[in-house]
Amino acid sequence: MPFRATVLTLYPEMFPGPLGHSLAGRALREERWAIDLVQIRDFATDRHRSVDDTPAGGGAGMVLRADVVAAALDSVADARPVVAMTPRGRPLTQPRVRALAAGGGVTILCGRFEGFDERLFEGRDIEEVAIGDYVLSGGEMGALVLLDACVRLLPGVMGAASSGDEESFESGLLEYPHYTRPVTWEGRTIPEVLRSGDHARIAAWRKSMAETDTRLRRPDLWERHEGARVQPPSGARRTKD
Amino acid sequence: MPFRATVLTLYPEMFPGPLGHSLAGRALREERWAIDLVQIRDFATDRHRSVDDTPAGGGAGMVLRADVVAAALDSVADARPVVAMTPRGRPLTQPRVRALAAGGGVTILCGRFEGFDERLFEGRDIEEVAIGDYVLSGGEMGALVLLDACVRLLPGVMGAASSGDEESFESGLLEYPHYTRPVTWEGRTIPEVLRSGDHARIAAWRKSMAETDTRLRRPDLWERHEGARVQPPSGARRTKD
Repeated sequence: MPFRATVLTLYPEMFPGPLGHSLAGRALREERWAIDLVQIRDFATDRHRSVDDTPAGGGAGMVLRADVVAAALDSVADARPVVAMTPRGRPLTQPRVRALAAGGGVTILCGRFEGFDERLFEGRDIEEVAIGDYVLSGGEMGALVLLDACVRLLPGVMGAASSGDEESFESGLLEYPHYTRPVTWEGRTIPEVLRSGDHARIAAWRKSMAETDTRLRRPDLWERHEGARVQPPSGARRTKD
Repeated sequence: MPFRATVLTLYPEMFPGPLGHSLAGRALREERWAIDLVQIRDFATDRHRSVDDTPAGGGAGMVLRADVVAAALDSVADARPVVAMTPRGRPLTQPRVRALAAGGGVTILCGRFEGFDERLFEGRDIEEVAIGDYVLSGGEMGALVLLDACVRLLPGVMGAASSGDEESFESGLLEYPHYTRPVTWEGRTIPEVLRSGDHARIAAWRKSMAETDTRLRRPDLWERHEGARVQPPSGARRTKD
């Protein structure tokens, strides 16, 4: 069974979009994954096919109706996890991507406007996910990002293109810097260690660079990495919580 | 002058892709923004049109050559900021999106494979940006996300669809939860305060919900928000750094 994505959206024409090209596109044609699209508007019940309404309590924008979205979701209910792309969600991480890619697929709910009626998340088992701390015009872009991240991890997709194991975030660190030919470019030469042929030295240099760059560029990642690595010594005082 | 995006990529066929639909697509047709595409491969100098080579020091994958990418970049050099989408970059934030959208445009460099030769970032003025802590098949998805976030903020794009001011991240907090009709859905009723018509109470409730949800869902955001808000009392002890 290939990895199967079902996307619920008001803009099915946005898919597969960029996922129809390059690695993901080839994998789609090779049936390593599949995508089904559900038009949320098909589950509207009034003659105007309304999917949204004004926010209770007033304010700008429109809110997606819980009843319409739930009906769309119920139409595809199966064992796959349901993910809603929303800025209020839990930030997407590489471990979560890896877990989703290892499963049979995912159902993705794309919001628009001001978002979903909150009762939807009380009434259905939905994981709210954010791809970053910025605002997009809708959940479609997030769905494309989530699927691209998953699809490249499916068996046979990356092939020899990349090992996938030494990349940024896989170890909780940024990846070390890369260099390739020409050896000298605009007076800048590839670091000597990388030209030494000494595999142990190269590995040590890369590890050290990954750690240094993470510490300098992403103190937040570094802190989490150190926190996960360091075990409190036996008998040491532990803080509550 | 509309907002002008130039995207340097090995996959120009991925653009405008999803940005050709909905709000961004209409704005593109209305010439509120424009997109130019540059095929990096056109700047290769050998007869195989190579853009990449094996990593110095060994390892899986291929690295984009500094000389080829710099030649592509130099061909579009102007006053606009240059952003490279890479997991080693600074995380994209809504304030950065807002600043970019307020400028005349942006040049976006999309990586593939293992990334760029690091010397590129020493030899050119490039801002490295990550859209999140996960790995994608290339920078194209990040470019689409960045452009979507910018375009929706351009004058006339959102129209009355949203104020944009009360959204997640604009205040450093998640947005409060939304509700709309029907008043009761599956036994769940819209919170009474939102039906009260008392604007002051509604505003207070929303503020309190935004704060509570941020604290519970995103302690990292909450800490930053509190750090930015709280001024140390005069004479109080301050920690170093």
